[in-house]
Amino acid sequence: MLEMNLYLDPANKRPLYQQLYDSLTRQIRSGQLRAGDRLPGKRSLAAQLAVAVNTVDTAYQMLVAEGYLEARPKSGFYVLEYTDMLPQREGEAPPFVPPVPAPPPVRFDLSTGSVDTALFPFSTWGRIQKELLYARPELLSHGHRQGEAELREELAVYLRAYRGVVCSPEQIVVGAGVEYLLGLLAQLLREGGGAAAIENPGYDRPRTILVNNGVPCRCVDIDSSGLPVPGLEESGANICYVTPSHHFPTGVTMPAGRRAQLLRWAAAAPGRYILEDDYDAEFRFDMRPIPSLQGMAGPAGPVVYLCTFSKSLAPSIRIACMVLPEDLLGRYRAAFGSYSNTVSRFEQHTLCRFLREGYFTRHLARLRSAYKSRMTALALALEERLPGVRLQGRHTGLHLLLTLPDGPGEAEMERSALAAGVGLRGLSRYYMERPERCPANTVVLGYASLRDQETAALAEALGRAWGEPPAIGPPPPP
Amino acid sequence: MLEMNLYLDPANKRPLYQQLYDSLTRQIRSGQLRAGDRLPGKRSLAAQLAVAVNTVDTAYQMLVAEGYLEARPKSGFYVLEYTDMLPQREGEAPPFVPPVPAPPPVRFDLSTGSVDTALFPFSTWGRIQKELLYARPELLSHGHRQGEAELREELAVYLRAYRGVVCSPEQIVVGAGVEYLLGLLAQLLREGGGAAAIENPGYDRPRTILVNNGVPCRCVDIDSSGLPVPGLEESGANICYVTPSHHFPTGVTMPAGRRAQLLRWAAAAPGRYILEDDYDAEFRFDMRPIPSLQGMAGPAGPVVYLCTFSKSLAPSIRIACMVLPEDLLGRYRAAFGSYSNTVSRFEQHTLCRFLREGYFTRHLARLRSAYKSRMTALALALEERLPGVRLQGRHTGLHLLLTLPDGPGEAEMERSALAAGVGLRGLSRYYMERPERCPANTVVLGYASLRDQETAALAEALGRAWGEPPAIGPPPPP
Repeated sequence: MLEMNLYLDPANKRPLYQQLYDSLTRQIRSGQLRAGDRLPGKRSLAAQLAVAVNTVDTAYQMLVAEGYLEARPKSGFYVLEYTDMLPQREGEAPPFVPPVPAPPPVRFDLSTGSVDTALFPFSTWGRIQKELLYARPELLSHGHRQGEAELREELAVYLRAYRGVVCSPEQIVVGAGVEYLLGLLAQLLREGGGAAAIENPGYDRPRTILVNNGVPCRCVDIDSSGLPVPGLEESGANICYVTPSHHFPTGVTMPAGRRAQLLRWAAAAPGRYILEDDYDAEFRFDMRPIPSLQGMAGPAGPVVYLCTFSKSLAPSIRIACMVLPEDLLGRYRAAFGSYSNTVSRFEQHTLCRFLREGYFTRHLARLRSAYKSRMTALALALEERLPGVRLQGRHTGLHLLLTLPDGPGEAEMERSALAAGVGLRGLSRYYMERPERCPANTVVLGYASLRDQETAALAEALGRAWGEPPAIGPPPPP
Repeated sequence: MLEMNLYLDPANKRPLYQQLYDSLTRQIRSGQLRAGDRLPGKRSLAAQLAVAVNTVDTAYQMLVAEGYLEARPKSGFYVLEYTDMLPQREGEAPPFVPPVPAPPPVRFDLSTGSVDTALFPFSTWGRIQKELLYARPELLSHGHRQGEAELREELAVYLRAYRGVVCSPEQIVVGAGVEYLLGLLAQLLREGGGAAAIENPGYDRPRTILVNNGVPCRCVDIDSSGLPVPGLEESGANICYVTPSHHFPTGVTMPAGRRAQLLRWAAAAPGRYILEDDYDAEFRFDMRPIPSLQGMAGPAGPVVYLCTFSKSLAPSIRIACMVLPEDLLGRYRAAFGSYSNTVSRFEQHTLCRFLREGYFTRHLARLRSAYKSRMTALALALEERLPGVRLQGRHTGLHLLLTLPDGPGEAEMERSALAAGVGLRGLSRYYMERPERCPANTVVLGYASLRDQETAALAEALGRAWGEPPAIGPPPPP
């Protein structure tokens, strides 16, 4: 029988059995206790430590379960062989790796891509989530690889009614973000050895993903109707990534004629595809959102429709979907048919019920109304503080473009805004090529995560930053 | 001025402005209204249709925004050129696309990859999840791209203590499944233009992912210690994907000596990496899991450690992580630093608290104990029903290999098992090459999703299927 050198601390927050377990594993791993050693009986150790027998029993059972001890019937608990022939790194400290530096916090964060989390439907979402966890434990096992069938059915109905998307639920693929889905698409589409045309200015993430997945990108300058077809033809691309309902970041909505031209371009040669990113079509304030290009082209047409719930629900709930034309669906299934779906089944079913029971459309109406009044208040406050200011993008999306016709230049506008506690980006940062074509003195204002009561203070801060000519300091000392 | 042929139906559920919009687009698209046509004034059309002026105004504004009409100041609304020869799709039914056929249901599903969902810690998981939803609404916004810092800290502690992984939290990347993470790794590693060696037999998903992401694969036959280094050298690969703690599906645990050889192979040339998939190391029944290769190599060594929570929690909760060596971390951040994380922040934080508060290790101990007694009961029942049967893999993992020395052949074993209601796969199906080397009469039995009370009935079914020589039918008619 071993003499145990153990001390449990009743004042420690860690439970007593856990403390006992910790001590014993330490002694086994350090060699103080060796293979074949017999531990004291449960009752005698409990008496020695002045704890309940159950406390010792729990610790012993944990050690048995983890392979430190063996319980021999009618004999007791013995230490098992701890064969660690490997170089001993136990004492080695993990390396210090510097974290990715975070941007300094600002008083007003006007970056795009965030949302007002206070508008999230906590109680409904939480209730459905909890009901599903208890009522449908089978959702813990593997689900459908393209996404849950029930969710895809609801998505087909929703996309048909609200976005004019014409598809069967089988054409829908659910994934953890548009970025993930775009990566898979790129792997399919690169086979032809082609290239993708992307909008300039535009969102740079799609380019990164396409290029990382082996699809070279060509930037095509947009005009007042969006991506122009002559520029697209000239680029030689066979894939065209577009945001027709609301170009990012200029807010242009592609008119019907241009859409038709784009579809004719795609139909003119085999292997041409349009990737339609409908990233925030839900946020149109003046009227019904414009039906999708996919709907114009039809389910066999050359359009892949992509949309995300990161703005309509929350960026951290990673649910997006794409609608594949029938020919790509076959290729998708051949290449990726064995991949597990990347979205938690519980979150998929929560969204499914949220859609089916009508919460989603009501939630969207609430979001639209909240964001519209915030935008209106902000625009008014800015026009008051910054006479002559020009604001674009009032009808759609969650950001405005602000131009100061006589401004001090975009870089200076960014700099002085930051000094006043306002984080924002100049429009030229979204030009991947030819930034010299960018309108002067223009910045992008994402207002989604602003609080309503902050609009006045924000306008005041920007008014101070930009509204008066910079103060002239005292002359330098001679 | 045009004479309009319009009829709005007040009994229709579609709003009047929408009906008007529909009629007008139909007329424009069909050519009844042509470019340059001037529409009736809003007031006159409203009077003609007996609707509010606002109804007409809304429809006209929608048509302007979508590029069907042009509003000429002080003149009226004119039809724009609609060069759309596209088919009319409004009434079109979505196509019927046949779903991916599901395998027929069986009474006993012995596929690998499933788990016993009844063992899931519903109440703790549900409680933490709910607390987080209400207490930390900020988790709705974008999180850290590599995964939540708090979770990565807990993972570093856990992997250190239980898997001997030595790393800083900064080296950890959290993602929606090992498959997703492996895809990113492949994109990084293909740059050198090399190839990956994979274990034969083995799990075919990694090969699919590596090949889809541009990394060719070479199958290397394993021996009784796992992947042999001479075979690896011969393959010419610079990347080596292995499952050292528990080879899939043979259950071989790579001994320390072979591990050291493997690390020496990686160190012998620049650009060599070992991808260590520790997919079910938690399920060792005889002793403490063997520490990882990553820990032997250290945080700057050439090992990428990959692990998943799909077996220890649930397949449908998509959380996996990888630990990158320091040199790959820099390349990872350069290539993918802008990608959003693919895992819901709420699920990340639920797992974080589950680890931090000790639930996870207790849950694992409970799983191990439940699976061990199920495996023991199943083995006993099989040995009773099938005299002479050989079972391998009792110490680790969630499946057994079953060999009938005098069996009727693997294909016949699969077939007759299925006829008896048992779904299982022959071992040769895991041979990606050279299936002729597969041991005869051997099948893979995943017992994780079996119920305890089913072991006897399963053994009986297999006993009937395999225990007696197949009945000889009546002679064929002459």
